[in-house]
Amino acid sequence: MGIGIDLGGTNIKGGIVDEQGKILRELSVKTDSARGYADVKNDLLALIKELLLQAPAEQAIGIGIPGILSADGSTVVSCPNLGWKNVDLKKDLEDGLTQEVQLVNDATAACIAEATFGSMAGCDNTMMITLGTGVGGGLILNGRIITGAHGVATEVGHMIMAENFYSCGCGKNGCLETFASATALVRYVKMRLQNGVTSPLIAEKKLDGKKIIDAAKAGDPLATEAVDRLAKYLGWAIANISDIVDPEIYAIGGGLSNAGGFLLEKIRIEAHKRLTYPHNAIPEIVLARFRNEAGMIGAANLGKYR
Amino acid sequence: MGIGIDLGGTNIKGGIVDEQGKILRELSVKTDSARGYADVKNDLLALIKELLLQAPAEQAIGIGIPGILSADGSTVVSCPNLGWKNVDLKKDLEDGLTQEVQLVNDATAACIAEATFGSMAGCDNTMMITLGTGVGGGLILNGRIITGAHGVATEVGHMIMAENFYSCGCGKNGCLETFASATALVRYVKMRLQNGVTSPLIAEKKLDGKKIIDAAKAGDPLATEAVDRLAKYLGWAIANISDIVDPEIYAIGGGLSNAGGFLLEKIRIEAHKRLTYPHNAIPEIVLARFRNEAGMIGAANLGKYR
Repeated sequence: MGIGIDLGGTNIKGGIVDEQGKILRELSVKTDSARGYADVKNDLLALIKELLLQAPAEQAIGIGIPGILSADGSTVVSCPNLGWKNVDLKKDLEDGLTQEVQLVNDATAACIAEATFGSMAGCDNTMMITLGTGVGGGLILNGRIITGAHGVATEVGHMIMAENFYSCGCGKNGCLETFASATALVRYVKMRLQNGVTSPLIAEKKLDGKKIIDAAKAGDPLATEAVDRLAKYLGWAIANISDIVDPEIYAIGGGLSNAGGFLLEKIRIEAHKRLTYPHNAIPEIVLARFRNEAGMIGAANLGKYR
Repeated sequence: MGIGIDLGGTNIKGGIVDEQGKILRELSVKTDSARGYADVKNDLLALIKELLLQAPAEQAIGIGIPGILSADGSTVVSCPNLGWKNVDLKKDLEDGLTQEVQLVNDATAACIAEATFGSMAGCDNTMMITLGTGVGGGLILNGRIITGAHGVATEVGHMIMAENFYSCGCGKNGCLETFASATALVRYVKMRLQNGVTSPLIAEKKLDGKKIIDAAKAGDPLATEAVDRLAKYLGWAIANISDIVDPEIYAIGGGLSNAGGFLLEKIRIEAHKRLTYPHNAIPEIVLARFRNEAGMIGAANLGKYR
């Protein structure tokens, strides 16, 4: 058992997670980040204490953070959704508790959830790739999470792939997430529409990743072009990641993974084309099993992968 | 102490390596790969036995292999220099010994040597990149070597970077080693000379990496263009690797690294341009310390990083 917290921009969710990865009890409060760090931290603490009342023997408390942690995992270096910079969240929470608190990046938490109970269960070398507004990653090698010497490992969304028509929020041009996120799909389709390509998508008032994928499924050529482009760059990135760390399996998660087998099959084909050993070293590529509960389940099981 | 063997295409070198990384005793025989696996294996065995006579208490025997190993490290899946495919070298040697034999890729052995006693000593997250005929890699994360789920991790030379004017021996187009090896330098300069670019290099009967680097150091514009191109793609690859595993330090080895600070500085600049966190997550990039002895020293210390 463990207590897992998923700190999101909208909600703080906490759960008591059992040995089979089931959430026995779940609590949730609005994040309300506008109030600032001290208040959100106090809400986190109150939520943890409430969960501890129901699981008083619990010693494992993990928190999934949508941001960058310091190499030692104690400080939230940057968490844009909450407006946090260099806050000592681990210490600040532990000051109010008798238990240790461990922090983890949210995509790494999702990787842990999949590797422990989900679509990558039983594998020691696993990679999670989340496709949402951006592209995130989590990596487990030899049964341990990879966080890096500076805490910035698995920032796979920022691998530079090729020149792109718009630059990434990080300041670079050509980052994977400008090719392979929901944002990238929308930007690409809008650019092509502006260039005069015709598509029923032009009637959409608020274009999003789901609408583009649905249009591609329905056979719209522009939407297909956009989704194929995403799959090409993501498959290419997966092949390159395999050249570096050679995972046994990749799980694709995040909002865009709701596209299911339609998108997955395209990604598999594009990755396979670019593998260095396409005959004898083929990673599996699967859909993630967990959705919103991934962060809690992963954070609760963090201790097993440190 | 340990016994480390460096199995090369030309020589088999074996050494007794002490706790400070010094080679106390070294033996060498010609590899003579034309004779086939059984004979070369017998030479290996004889060399190990001779070293054991001088270090009878030794239990750690490691062999650096210029090829691909199986995920469990027991089989040489492919070793082009020796013409080996799927040979059970570990078992075949252990049948003639009372000690365990451990196999490791030669670039990983070099990474171990640098991480234990060389230019990356004291670091837990280290990457070795060897620039020679091809581009090789070795990676240590959390103090353990990364070999991958299929044994093909750190094949960094085969990351696809961009379209290139010639294809890689692996069958793909755009692999890092077609941009950043000695072979790449020579091919690029020859292509440019054929296209009518003028350079004193046209007088060279047998162009090689060293001649091109020396010409660049002397200010030749074509040689400079070739070396700058190498640095650009290698720096780009280093930045992308940092986005995946975030090493603390990279060591550049292999024949081309004899270019020294001239090349190193260019690589540093190109990598730094492409880092996702250029202000607070900057990997060191240094020259490897060891040359021909790296394989022996690394192989002898393999057990510490398993």
